[in-house]
Amino acid sequence: MRNHDPERFGATYRVRADQRNIQARAQALALEQSIEMPLDAVTQDFVRDRIVARVASIEPAGAGAFDVTLSFATSTTGLEAGQLMNMLFGNCSLQPDVELRAFEPDGELLRALPGPRFGVQGWRRALGIDGAPPRPLTCTALKPQGQSPQQLAELAATFALAGIDVIKDDHGIADQDSARFAPRVAAVQKAIRQAARERGGDTRVLYAPTLSGGPRRLREQLRVARDEGVGAVLVCPMLCGVPTLVELVREEAGVPILAHPAFAGNVRIAPDLLLGRLFRMFGADATIFPNFGGRFSYDRATCRAIADRAREPLEHVAPILPVPAGGMGTERVGEMIREFGSDVMLLIGGQLLAGAVTPGDSVLARATAFVERVRHDSASMHSTGAERHHE
Amino acid sequence: MRNHDPERFGATYRVRADQRNIQARAQALALEQSIEMPLDAVTQDFVRDRIVARVASIEPAGAGAFDVTLSFATSTTGLEAGQLMNMLFGNCSLQPDVELRAFEPDGELLRALPGPRFGVQGWRRALGIDGAPPRPLTCTALKPQGQSPQQLAELAATFALAGIDVIKDDHGIADQDSARFAPRVAAVQKAIRQAARERGGDTRVLYAPTLSGGPRRLREQLRVARDEGVGAVLVCPMLCGVPTLVELVREEAGVPILAHPAFAGNVRIAPDLLLGRLFRMFGADATIFPNFGGRFSYDRATCRAIADRAREPLEHVAPILPVPAGGMGTERVGEMIREFGSDVMLLIGGQLLAGAVTPGDSVLARATAFVERVRHDSASMHSTGAERHHE
Repeated sequence: MRNHDPERFGATYRVRADQRNIQARAQALALEQSIEMPLDAVTQDFVRDRIVARVASIEPAGAGAFDVTLSFATSTTGLEAGQLMNMLFGNCSLQPDVELRAFEPDGELLRALPGPRFGVQGWRRALGIDGAPPRPLTCTALKPQGQSPQQLAELAATFALAGIDVIKDDHGIADQDSARFAPRVAAVQKAIRQAARERGGDTRVLYAPTLSGGPRRLREQLRVARDEGVGAVLVCPMLCGVPTLVELVREEAGVPILAHPAFAGNVRIAPDLLLGRLFRMFGADATIFPNFGGRFSYDRATCRAIADRAREPLEHVAPILPVPAGGMGTERVGEMIREFGSDVMLLIGGQLLAGAVTPGDSVLARATAFVERVRHDSASMHSTGAERHHE
Repeated sequence: MRNHDPERFGATYRVRADQRNIQARAQALALEQSIEMPLDAVTQDFVRDRIVARVASIEPAGAGAFDVTLSFATSTTGLEAGQLMNMLFGNCSLQPDVELRAFEPDGELLRALPGPRFGVQGWRRALGIDGAPPRPLTCTALKPQGQSPQQLAELAATFALAGIDVIKDDHGIADQDSARFAPRVAAVQKAIRQAARERGGDTRVLYAPTLSGGPRRLREQLRVARDEGVGAVLVCPMLCGVPTLVELVREEAGVPILAHPAFAGNVRIAPDLLLGRLFRMFGADATIFPNFGGRFSYDRATCRAIADRAREPLEHVAPILPVPAGGMGTERVGEMIREFGSDVMLLIGGQLLAGAVTPGDSVLARATAFVERVRHDSASMHSTGAERHHE
């Protein structure tokens, strides 16, 4: 433990307040998020000097709003993900005049949290395409819930035959009676493996089953996933809890982790920060988000910001794949590639199934069209140099 | 698994929409929260009949708003807490026109989720006051973080000498260098035990240390808590994840669980539902909430509703203690007792410390005044029969 010049990190909050009381409001926020008591009741110099969060700056942010940056002592997080979330937004989640907008981790935090094990390049290596010119990965979802393992396996085989890179469970397929985790994962993984062989060449397809439940159940699911040789896992960090992502899933998965934003919406934390930066620091290798123009309401700037936070340089922490989703279709592939470049995973779910009478040919045709569209649009982007430049 | 008439539960959402599109919006919500795909792409009758959520009713709820009640198949939850949250509010957390207002669990869910092990009567038994006329319990918090175990232990001894029933860690005191969990819990528990002996009579004081982190760390903390004989634990369900509360903390704590609302604010889930009903179903024995008129913005009706959900009859599920908090002071004890009755735990934190020069006499005097005020006001309420009637 350092005694001098301890590490600190910054976090910026959008606070609704009047000019005349913003100073007091900012100071109250600093206390609420650190010692949760009046400063004049603090009797220890150490606490006053090293523990209390400080108001680093207050900037106007439009009518009746200010951006307040607090400086936190890193030691107050215990270098643990849940307690970091607590320091950032624990009590003030209960104060509707406050939104968390940005967070600048210091090196100590970045080193202490696991970060992605695989990241962008890890996905490519897992698919055996890391030697080729980079292209977007394709992803789809097994759905709906309620089907038997065998039905889901047949659908998975269809997608694998089409050459989709990553086939994930719908995040609503958890561990229900209709398709318990163990038999489902065994059946789907077997079907995917057979279909990839059938497709031939060097086709690799990664299956990402949904992990869910408490630690004991998760550990058992991770064991099944390892035993069956699945290539990835899907997890909802805001449902399982970020400490569980960090300490259990990230440590034991051994394959790339796909983070799903269920329950992560509108918590008054900027989406780019939560889905882009924090999930990345906590160990996700790809982060699904609701793309603009689909069933959800994030705008284009928000989606770009999520992709930026996922991929921008962050000390030693590997970039991860942004995964635009939520009502996307093959007709948007070209546009999404222009928007997000090659380091992206494109997820089309329901549209590949819509209108299908049986999970047979028509699904295969649509999935194949999706895969081909991505390869075609990606190749033409490379040849024309039209890819939007990323840092 | 039943094949006919499967169990279902209801959930009510406040949806912002126009009269002319509320039917379509409600139907889209039902799909989003169950199968996450167009209904016409569902090829299996079983899924259509047994899995898809149904729109049970749509009621006007003021200008531009409707209360949409969906009926869910209980089987879609897998009878697991995280997946229940997912079905209730996973994807639609990302749709800002939707708020979750109410949830009526069916018997199967209530039996499958653990519920409180101790509840209101369990707290009284643990304190050895279950034979006496019911009175509110007193609670305070060890703070601020940054103090050493010895400093926290001295403060705890002061509170215990004053006869406070439950002494909890501030929820920001996690597992930091300044006071690691194991030495802190040992020191505080020892100090509390000695002080209770010193105070004499049949004084019992329960210490509730903050549990934090991922499953491995939590399991180790639970072991320490058991070994040291602590009387309760504090946990933040929205930070550790509700599946971890259900499967790990509820199963292994062996003592009453105090739930803290950190990170639970303004997620567009009605506070009475989340803090009152759901935390209770997931195993909390008491639920802290920010009382009206303090540092937070919940109004009186919201606070009453939280207390109602915590204590109302719910099949076999024991009632739990509401814990109004967040800037309360001794001067509000009488009012809080009139508001919430005897089945309540009154939490006063910072005010007992404010203005203290050393954690000595003045803190002791304030804490003693708090304890005496509760006993006095509670006794006079009993003698005048002035307690607000609860179901």
